[in-house]
Amino acid sequence: MSTPQPATRPDLGPLTLRSGRVRAARRLTARAARAERREFLAEGPQAVREALGAGVTREVFATSAATHRHDDLAAAASAQHITWHVVAEEVVGALADTVTPQGIIARCAFVDVSLHELMAAQPSLLAVLDEVRDPGNAGTVIRCADACGAAGVALSRSSVDPYNGKVVRASAGSLFHLPVAVAPSLDHLVDLARGAGLQVLAADASGEVGLDQALEDGRLAGPTAWLFGNEARGLAEEALSLSDAVVSVPIPGRAESLNLATAAAVCLYATAWAQRRRGGCRKAATGQ
Amino acid sequence: MSTPQPATRPDLGPLTLRSGRVRAARRLTARAARAERREFLAEGPQAVREALGAGVTREVFATSAATHRHDDLAAAASAQHITWHVVAEEVVGALADTVTPQGIIARCAFVDVSLHELMAAQPSLLAVLDEVRDPGNAGTVIRCADACGAAGVALSRSSVDPYNGKVVRASAGSLFHLPVAVAPSLDHLVDLARGAGLQVLAADASGEVGLDQALEDGRLAGPTAWLFGNEARGLAEEALSLSDAVVSVPIPGRAESLNLATAAAVCLYATAWAQRRRGGCRKAATGQ
Repeated sequence: MSTPQPATRPDLGPLTLRSGRVRAARRLTARAARAERREFLAEGPQAVREALGAGVTREVFATSAATHRHDDLAAAASAQHITWHVVAEEVVGALADTVTPQGIIARCAFVDVSLHELMAAQPSLLAVLDEVRDPGNAGTVIRCADACGAAGVALSRSSVDPYNGKVVRASAGSLFHLPVAVAPSLDHLVDLARGAGLQVLAADASGEVGLDQALEDGRLAGPTAWLFGNEARGLAEEALSLSDAVVSVPIPGRAESLNLATAAAVCLYATAWAQRRRGGCRKAATGQ
Repeated sequence: MSTPQPATRPDLGPLTLRSGRVRAARRLTARAARAERREFLAEGPQAVREALGAGVTREVFATSAATHRHDDLAAAASAQHITWHVVAEEVVGALADTVTPQGIIARCAFVDVSLHELMAAQPSLLAVLDEVRDPGNAGTVIRCADACGAAGVALSRSSVDPYNGKVVRASAGSLFHLPVAVAPSLDHLVDLARGAGLQVLAADASGEVGLDQALEDGRLAGPTAWLFGNEARGLAEEALSLSDAVVSVPIPGRAESLNLATAAAVCLYATAWAQRRRGGCRKAATGQ
């Protein structure tokens, strides 16, 4: 009498916490290992779906319950000849960055592009993060830049790693389809942006120009790279001096400041709106 | 020969986890206990400073290190005859909602106002949260509404409790100086808002009017209450049907949606800007 077989591939057998593949994947929870392998972990069904769509998935770890819930993803992985490991919850838990993982994690190749590629696309609107440390903020800015039609996001080396699990989650999939670049230095990035015809605006509470004024005097209608700085300290002097103008989001109310992602959203949307309104910008005119 | 005395009041002695005051304060980590006592906990030096400024602090628990770091707050508490308990780290840890508490927590009286008070101020701009469940989102919207000069925020009963520790933290102090109301029902709130001369705009991806269009046709320049809905599902049919128009934030890019707090920031800032530009609105004209 035959016993039921597990759903995993018979040539692999169920992986455990001690399996070499699990231990190798687990190392990717550390930034240094990610940088060395140029691989990262994408957690949850939305991220795995986007990773499969982007063609960067190398393998998937999922519980049997998650495999059942997301059989469309298992089929998509199979069609791309990507190994789908059905594993115990503790394996997903060991790879996951959240307290309540959704039972599915993919090992993926890095998706970032070079600054040259980013600029070669003649962007109308870019977001640049310098010394942004909170992963939720960075991911939310990536998602917002994608939503408003920006051509990409660049992060300076002193910012949070865009492949940090919380950045990937907060980007809600945008990391996989919006071009993201990591800049070796901010002045190099600014040089390239200027070379691509972009003005460089620094968003900072110290700004001498209000965002209202910049919107009204037509300044936002041209191709623009926005610099956003650290959550607590704002942009460093060097970053401010590299920019063409320092622009502040008006705070007529009593709050001391805006959350970084909120301020970035307001700047990016105001610029996208000004560009659509003028209709003269290189890419934004295709927006609704 | 005398021994050094602890910095706590001699008539109280150091509090422990078993002390009645600590146990009573700890109950405020649950929503039901907060509602019954109309008291909540405000964590971290920024929130305690705002709570002292607002005159709603009932007592403060702080480690000796935090007391040393924030002796200005201890002095302010003393001037208001508010008891400052120097306690062990484990006591602050038991009251705190964060993994790394900053060593200081205040027990405070509720600060919310009634809907009638909110409307009596003849607001030009209000944010209304219906079925918003994520405390970080709710707190960020309160902070943003405060920053852009809105007159207040109203939350429906089905939204997260504004006194949840994460809401208090994400509001970055704004909960203590921006009028916040809890609405018994959304239709009552909408009735009152209309009575106060506000148009009611629902922010929802299903909207037939784009935010750009609403901005350009002057619709945003009048007194406005914005309805923002659940993070995953958006606004319910009932909320959409109660509004004068359903407005969507344009997403010309490839992101599926915007984070709720991001969408709210864009709507609130666009409206504040339209009102400042017209100069005709009841309160916004005082903004910069």
